[in-house]
Amino acid sequence: MPALYFTENEYKSRLFATKQEMQRSGFDTLILSDPANIFYLTGFDAWSFYAPLFIVVSCDLDEPIWIGRFQDAVSARDTTYLKEENICAYPDHYVQSSTCHPAEPASHILRERGLDRGVIAVEMGAYYYTARIHAEFVRYNPNARFADGELLVNRVRLIKSDAEQAYMRQAGRIADAAIAAAIDRCAPGVRECDVVAGIYKTQISGTPEYGGVYTTSPPHFCAGERVRTPHGLWTDQPLQNNSALNIEIAGSRLHYHCPISRTVYLGLPPDSYIRLADAVVEGLNTTMDHIKPGMTAEEVELVWRRSIAKHGFEKEARLGYSIGIGFPPTWGERTASLRPGDKTVLQPGMAFHCMSGLWLDSTGIAITQSFLVTKEGNEPLTQYDRSLAAKT
Amino acid sequence: MPALYFTENEYKSRLFATKQEMQRSGFDTLILSDPANIFYLTGFDAWSFYAPLFIVVSCDLDEPIWIGRFQDAVSARDTTYLKEENICAYPDHYVQSSTCHPAEPASHILRERGLDRGVIAVEMGAYYYTARIHAEFVRYNPNARFADGELLVNRVRLIKSDAEQAYMRQAGRIADAAIAAAIDRCAPGVRECDVVAGIYKTQISGTPEYGGVYTTSPPHFCAGERVRTPHGLWTDQPLQNNSALNIEIAGSRLHYHCPISRTVYLGLPPDSYIRLADAVVEGLNTTMDHIKPGMTAEEVELVWRRSIAKHGFEKEARLGYSIGIGFPPTWGERTASLRPGDKTVLQPGMAFHCMSGLWLDSTGIAITQSFLVTKEGNEPLTQYDRSLAAKT
Repeated sequence: MPALYFTENEYKSRLFATKQEMQRSGFDTLILSDPANIFYLTGFDAWSFYAPLFIVVSCDLDEPIWIGRFQDAVSARDTTYLKEENICAYPDHYVQSSTCHPAEPASHILRERGLDRGVIAVEMGAYYYTARIHAEFVRYNPNARFADGELLVNRVRLIKSDAEQAYMRQAGRIADAAIAAAIDRCAPGVRECDVVAGIYKTQISGTPEYGGVYTTSPPHFCAGERVRTPHGLWTDQPLQNNSALNIEIAGSRLHYHCPISRTVYLGLPPDSYIRLADAVVEGLNTTMDHIKPGMTAEEVELVWRRSIAKHGFEKEARLGYSIGIGFPPTWGERTASLRPGDKTVLQPGMAFHCMSGLWLDSTGIAITQSFLVTKEGNEPLTQYDRSLAAKT
Repeated sequence: MPALYFTENEYKSRLFATKQEMQRSGFDTLILSDPANIFYLTGFDAWSFYAPLFIVVSCDLDEPIWIGRFQDAVSARDTTYLKEENICAYPDHYVQSSTCHPAEPASHILRERGLDRGVIAVEMGAYYYTARIHAEFVRYNPNARFADGELLVNRVRLIKSDAEQAYMRQAGRIADAAIAAAIDRCAPGVRECDVVAGIYKTQISGTPEYGGVYTTSPPHFCAGERVRTPHGLWTDQPLQNNSALNIEIAGSRLHYHCPISRTVYLGLPPDSYIRLADAVVEGLNTTMDHIKPGMTAEEVELVWRRSIAKHGFEKEARLGYSIGIGFPPTWGERTASLRPGDKTVLQPGMAFHCMSGLWLDSTGIAITQSFLVTKEGNEPLTQYDRSLAAKT
């Protein structure tokens, strides 16, 4: 029996919503290669996307068709609700070959099922839909017209079901535990890698009730000079006194992510740094006070923008992004962004990471908050104190 | 001062070898998007490839040009030897936008430097070179002819320098420590996630002399029914007595990977399982005894194939693959594979993971060995005992 994380009915309603969007867009067939979309529609959960991996959704078929490397087909049987006839594997010699490509057997399956004509939509900009895959699909399906269906399923994912929201709250508890483990461990003389080791341990051990799984990205752990960088890597050098460090991590419960960032100051922070922290925390708190359904994504950003402007700051990078299911390399859903121009209307069940951080010429700070949009306003997904963590 | 992992001379010789291959292939310009190739040629080391990230190599220019998201440019300054003029950032509104694409400012840079004509090679099948990126590059560079330069740099990477070999040995020590931590922790009643948490902790803490960094893939931890799957995910359920589990992990020292897999049996293994383990270990040992420079990749596989055939087994999947620098989603270099048809001649300085595992209908086993090819033969990169780890 496969171990499904949701009821079959929930998967059915996701598929139904996807087909509705396909019909609205005039797509007959949709080939998905984003691992998060594959997971969302079928439950498929194994590390298989290093080789071409697809599901094919047809408006005319009851179930998606899984197409992947032969030795990973057993994972499709273990983790999805799909019938055996809809689990299609290609032989191993197609893997990383210079002479043949998995799009060939995949196109053969399309032809067999009568899906090689009409409009085939693909995810043009999805991470694992390479230029080569597309060229091969076009070559092997001369009777089809290709269209861009990128983000179609990502948009269906924007509003989380009750069951999804429950997983996101659990991810939040894991994130809280992991950031606490990190900050507790930080001290002058401790190697950066040893603090990060403790983060990983807590992310995966999770809580006594449930464990965590891998996050899409490693901890961003930026100490010393790297405090100016948002996505830097830890070193194996000891932490220094009188320095700031930024930590950005997430908890992941069955691939549902809840990110959190905090800045730690080792030693007594200088006044200038305290003022910086005050501006960011005030901006975050003010923003959180305002967030409610009916606002647009850009209106949320404007609240933050005005608040930090009072202190003389400006942030070029977007303030945040929609979160939910994540597979490497990002826990962002790649749909709504909290930034000027984004007219997405916030609705109950959406989730965001408010990335209230500033990276300046010589320093950086990040004190952030993930949240669900609720009927009344918003629900923070982590409880960790919103402040600069000074360790004196 | 940037923190380079290698001497500038070593980076220069890598670039020289790349340009030689470009000239041999008739490429004027090479746009790279594989993070491992970017790291190899410039040292760039930050989590930036979730947004389009490129380096551009021209036969006429002294240095590659880095092109990435504006807020990650500071990481290019921190981790590469590139001159400021060769670090080019695009503004934040290009990130995950539905109305514009980073290939536009990237193409503007090509034009400015006179690189928008002649033959531009791209990495058609590299993970982060999406169909959308390619379509945009083609659109914005009407005067260029595009060619496929995938794996050109990967092939240059095949033979490791002395400095690279030193990092791979260190990765091996981390891998040994992590597999030992895992096997020590395995016992009936222990939650799978808690064993995995210990693996992560050791992978990152590394040794007292040096720490580890993230590996390209999470541990493949396949217990219970999932022992049949090569790339399954752990659960938060307790391990059961009288069952097998497979663990595949790597140590990563500054992105140089050394993988290792072991099978653990909780309780007294049945005779059938001991025979399976004996066949695999004998196959692995026999193969390792034979490996030396001058053999082809397929000849290595044949030694294994003949050995396990004596016990009535056959493995469809390839026996192994070249290793070195790895970024998600795979630690394989995607060049040489130990499988029929691969004529790559083994040379001193190449490194492979001999993936001596078998996945059968109802069970699986994996006892593997990473190694360097040396002048005389080969050098195992891990020392952990090659046997079934029975825990009674």
